[in-house]
Amino acid sequence: MRFGVNHTPSNGWFHSWLDFSPSDTARDLEAIAGLGADHVRIFPLWPVVQPNRTLIRPAALQDIATVVDIAGSFGLDVNVDALQGHLSSFDFVPSWLDSWHRRNMFTDPDVVASTADYVRALADAVADRPNLLGVTIGNEVNQFAHAPHPAPFPTTAAQGHAWAGAMVDAARAGLGSSTGAAASGTGREARGTSAPPPRRPLVTLAQYDAAWYDDAQPFGPEHAAEHGDATVTHSWVFNGAARLHGAMGAGSVRHGEYLLQLAAAWNERADRPNWLQEVGAPTNVVDVADAPDFTEQTIRHALDVQHLAGITWWCSHDVSRSLADFPELEYDLGLLTNDGRVKPTGERFREMALAFGDGRSEAPTPPSTALVLDDVAPDGAPRSGTRADSAPGGRFAAAWLSLAEQDGRGPQVVLRSRLGDTALLAARGIRTCVDVPADTTTTTLSVAHPATMP
Amino acid sequence: MRFGVNHTPSNGWFHSWLDFSPSDTARDLEAIAGLGADHVRIFPLWPVVQPNRTLIRPAALQDIATVVDIAGSFGLDVNVDALQGHLSSFDFVPSWLDSWHRRNMFTDPDVVASTADYVRALADAVADRPNLLGVTIGNEVNQFAHAPHPAPFPTTAAQGHAWAGAMVDAARAGLGSSTGAAASGTGREARGTSAPPPRRPLVTLAQYDAAWYDDAQPFGPEHAAEHGDATVTHSWVFNGAARLHGAMGAGSVRHGEYLLQLAAAWNERADRPNWLQEVGAPTNVVDVADAPDFTEQTIRHALDVQHLAGITWWCSHDVSRSLADFPELEYDLGLLTNDGRVKPTGERFREMALAFGDGRSEAPTPPSTALVLDDVAPDGAPRSGTRADSAPGGRFAAAWLSLAEQDGRGPQVVLRSRLGDTALLAARGIRTCVDVPADTTTTTLSVAHPATMP
Repeated sequence: MRFGVNHTPSNGWFHSWLDFSPSDTARDLEAIAGLGADHVRIFPLWPVVQPNRTLIRPAALQDIATVVDIAGSFGLDVNVDALQGHLSSFDFVPSWLDSWHRRNMFTDPDVVASTADYVRALADAVADRPNLLGVTIGNEVNQFAHAPHPAPFPTTAAQGHAWAGAMVDAARAGLGSSTGAAASGTGREARGTSAPPPRRPLVTLAQYDAAWYDDAQPFGPEHAAEHGDATVTHSWVFNGAARLHGAMGAGSVRHGEYLLQLAAAWNERADRPNWLQEVGAPTNVVDVADAPDFTEQTIRHALDVQHLAGITWWCSHDVSRSLADFPELEYDLGLLTNDGRVKPTGERFREMALAFGDGRSEAPTPPSTALVLDDVAPDGAPRSGTRADSAPGGRFAAAWLSLAEQDGRGPQVVLRSRLGDTALLAARGIRTCVDVPADTTTTTLSVAHPATMP
Repeated sequence: MRFGVNHTPSNGWFHSWLDFSPSDTARDLEAIAGLGADHVRIFPLWPVVQPNRTLIRPAALQDIATVVDIAGSFGLDVNVDALQGHLSSFDFVPSWLDSWHRRNMFTDPDVVASTADYVRALADAVADRPNLLGVTIGNEVNQFAHAPHPAPFPTTAAQGHAWAGAMVDAARAGLGSSTGAAASGTGREARGTSAPPPRRPLVTLAQYDAAWYDDAQPFGPEHAAEHGDATVTHSWVFNGAARLHGAMGAGSVRHGEYLLQLAAAWNERADRPNWLQEVGAPTNVVDVADAPDFTEQTIRHALDVQHLAGITWWCSHDVSRSLADFPELEYDLGLLTNDGRVKPTGERFREMALAFGDGRSEAPTPPSTALVLDDVAPDGAPRSGTRADSAPGGRFAAAWLSLAEQDGRGPQVVLRSRLGDTALLAARGIRTCVDVPADTTTTTLSVAHPATMP
């Protein structure tokens, strides 16, 4: 169980890649280590590293590797995200994908091949670092599968699978690991086979929660659960949960736990790790005075989830007020102020990390009850609306929350389509499967994904 | 009369700003000086200099100033363009204007104010350099006033004037010059007043030729003629001229001359300088074997235009084949190969520069005949279609070309709306005004502005 922090550089935010400063980096990472974190997640900017489709800048790769080394000097492991892509409402897309050169980021053969080249080169640049935790394909790249990002988008889940598979293959190739999945050229784990155990470094795919909550998103839960070495979730209660439940309500402080359990329902192996890779206390919906308690309760609930690999808090440093146009919450989202002082949320995070990090927490036994998610109709026929059911306020989400509050711990989630897979259920420790009660009260929320999304 | 070259960095193209190398810069500029050029035009990338709306990177400004100094060491003056913006089919727009932050680049008050901050800071950074030729607001920024660039666009010519005025004011403020126009806050020269003579450094606005040829372009001839210190034209015969006339036909090798005369018709002062700031021999329409003759004839015809301030050839170096996705012509558009060898076009350019540059050519007397352009109806009522008339193949363009071939030199152009301004006509040396003959043969061309536009 790993406790980490997403690193938001204090001086110049991610634009600091343009003025890379080892000393600024060291100051930030030293402060993060002081929070009890054992790892950081870092975010190169795609157009800075690969400004032309066939130009991957060696100096940029060197800067990234240097950050990994500096982190190591403070005892921190590092996860490197490749395709940024999207960060805190800002998008960074190379000019070779813009306007006259606009092409489908996910399906154009030249684009996919060259994007894979970048992922491979980035992974290769850090592959030999002993403190490399993993490589994530990119931060919430599924953002680019819908407006306001420029069309064309992928239109099918299969196109999303092909893209994710190619990217995971590229990362593994860069890391020098060779798996059957990589060799197959599809990158998807073959269903029903015994997949290799997760390796370090981990290769992961990160998605924002529309993957689970929005039936229109081309990237869905299967993409999270079937690609890479762990299932990654990003929990943000400004998605409607806080509005519906109150920021300190169970539906908010259990949102991370819920999303972890929900996502795990699609895992094809019982022991696939679940990683809460982003979670934070956004003060547009969480009162500043409540933020430390929100932080603690969110972490404690997440720790109840089986096979939890880690929690990586968003984020290290408040954005400087000298930078314009950020959503207001971003100026107060750090565990540290912009000038490096530990905030009350930072103190509470440190307490949690020291109490539960680094092997000090026992892995919880899986909840023995599972709530059945209707991914198919009772007769096995396809049905739509599964993701709307799962969104905060939806019938499934409401029923899960009710059970969690009744038991003090949220149940697992099982797909109706997998109820017959007794081996999987047994491996997951599921002994009781319960249906969503017919009288579940639902609230239809238009899940908000405003320009406030980190 | 100045002869110059647009500098396309040989190593890494304009992405080289991310890996700024004084020695690479010096090698390129030495080669350009060897072509007989007296100046270069250089192009910072906007998102590299101003990655956040309120972050203008001092290191980037320093790099730009360093290029100016290196150029000075080879005897070259420098014109610096600010808002790139658009270059050779690629666009570079900061993330604070993209997707979730998309706003009208030309009218949003925060955007305009911060864009002006950048223009001012850039001008200030180079203001004290003795070899500063001028500051151009940006390369063909009117590209961003239509698709495929993302909406919203400006919708009126007045919005374009307000924006251009604000940018020119900002450049002048950065250069430390104070003019009545700048003080007025509009940036437009007051009509009918005696404006100050052009100063060095020049402040200019650069537009691509849709400003003159496309009635749907919000930026038009007035913007070119009324803002800054000179009227700037960019002549590219891949706009349809070469298709219609043949690359070596009069309508092609006179295209620069024509556009200079056409643009000058909107000048409010007879002595306003005209600058052919971009012209090249694009080998998608010009045979490689013809390119040297095309170069010579284009230059010789342009030299016939009154008040010609300079010709700045596009471009210095072929784009490296190691960089992907450029329009094919860009790999062969240099006067120098990518590795710095002088091409036949470069030899011919040098002959022209040595023959006619640096005060060796006498300023031509203005043509005494002017062809009347129907910017209004004969009765003075507004009319539409003036720009379509002016495009290659249009009735006005065809008539101008016919006169040019008959006389060996193209006539001036006078707006019908200004025929009564006898003082202006006298100052321009116009003694005879002729109408477009009724029997002029026209060819309706869809003026092509493909992804091949430098």
